[in-house]
Amino acid sequence: MELKEAGICEGISEVIVTTRSWAGEPNAAPIGIITILNEDENENKHFVKLYEGTKTLSNVMETNKLAANVSDDAVLFVKAAFGNLNEAHLSLFSGFPVLNGAKSWILFKSAFIEKNGESGNFLFQLTPIAVKINQNEVKAINRGLNAVIEAAIIATRYAITKDKREKEDMEKIMKLYADIVEKCGGRREKEALKILHEHRERKRSPEGL
Amino acid sequence: MELKEAGICEGISEVIVTTRSWAGEPNAAPIGIITILNEDENENKHFVKLYEGTKTLSNVMETNKLAANVSDDAVLFVKAAFGNLNEAHLSLFSGFPVLNGAKSWILFKSAFIEKNGESGNFLFQLTPIAVKINQNEVKAINRGLNAVIEAAIIATRYAITKDKREKEDMEKIMKLYADIVEKCGGRREKEALKILHEHRERKRSPEGL
Repeated sequence: MELKEAGICEGISEVIVTTRSWAGEPNAAPIGIITILNEDENENKHFVKLYEGTKTLSNVMETNKLAANVSDDAVLFVKAAFGNLNEAHLSLFSGFPVLNGAKSWILFKSAFIEKNGESGNFLFQLTPIAVKINQNEVKAINRGLNAVIEAAIIATRYAITKDKREKEDMEKIMKLYADIVEKCGGRREKEALKILHEHRERKRSPEGL
Repeated sequence: MELKEAGICEGISEVIVTTRSWAGEPNAAPIGIITILNEDENENKHFVKLYEGTKTLSNVMETNKLAANVSDDAVLFVKAAFGNLNEAHLSLFSGFPVLNGAKSWILFKSAFIEKNGESGNFLFQLTPIAVKINQNEVKAINRGLNAVIEAAIIATRYAITKDKREKEDMEKIMKLYADIVEKCGGRREKEALKILHEHRERKRSPEGL
């Protein structure tokens, strides 16, 4: 099955991965789907790295499935990054949660390959079992959208970084991305940045601890 | 005319702008189209800032037209940034150059608004006079693509920056973007990064001076 038409191309595709636990509780998180062209067979292979301690990993362990939801909505990415996408954002396809408003989604079955002890991630190979394309469109590159994604990635790392110098460097880069969002983003990107900042402020305040 | 369907949304849309001189010589350059929602009239207004000394500005002065070509091809953006898109990459629409392989293009007429003396840019308001949508599709976010765009923007600024400390900061950030391209990009993004590096190397060598 060729997933290019569903938006999954060579390299790492940043998507919102939805999963469910064995008991049926849904989860959503922003994750990269790795696509490698196997030149011998002239077909793409798909992989994902999932981290120890995450809901996505435990759900995939329980069900051997995940859905990759393609979206360019900065707000959904930021909300997913902080665990704030709830059932109102999701629909069920054959009992499996997928993202409302996704431009496309691909339901994959997963096969465990190996654990990387050092970085604590688990590598899975993914095989598509269902694909839905909801919305084809043209959209110009917006630097603000990607600045939000980069800032969200750094913000999640910032929370687990201990080194002071490293944290200062991260703050500088987050400021750079915030400036790009203010300059180039539309309202959706600016709203996403606001949510990101609010989340960071909460983390700093005693109530958030 | 609503340009959302052609990929031009609120904020700054990074596109490849094609123009021609009065005599007919074409030019292509990566430029941001600024879109602002005018809430009173509930319609978008489009603007562009063009810089003194650029071919795009002199062409727009001569013809009062430009075409915004929507693309997500990293190689085309990098080539355009260094003036390396030639006639083989362009077609003519009613005598005006547009980009082959653009997902869409919008031909605008331009009206000069004001010159910003300090930054040396000229602001124009843009009104669409023709739109072509060639290819609707779904595509997941690829951090590598945007890292190439950011690196290309910094590389063009690097060339005109005198301050040593500022240049060092730029080099650090370009390295960061190069790492993202290597990790997340597909072949097209990696090829674009290679062209970017080759261009920078040439600029440093005596032959390039």
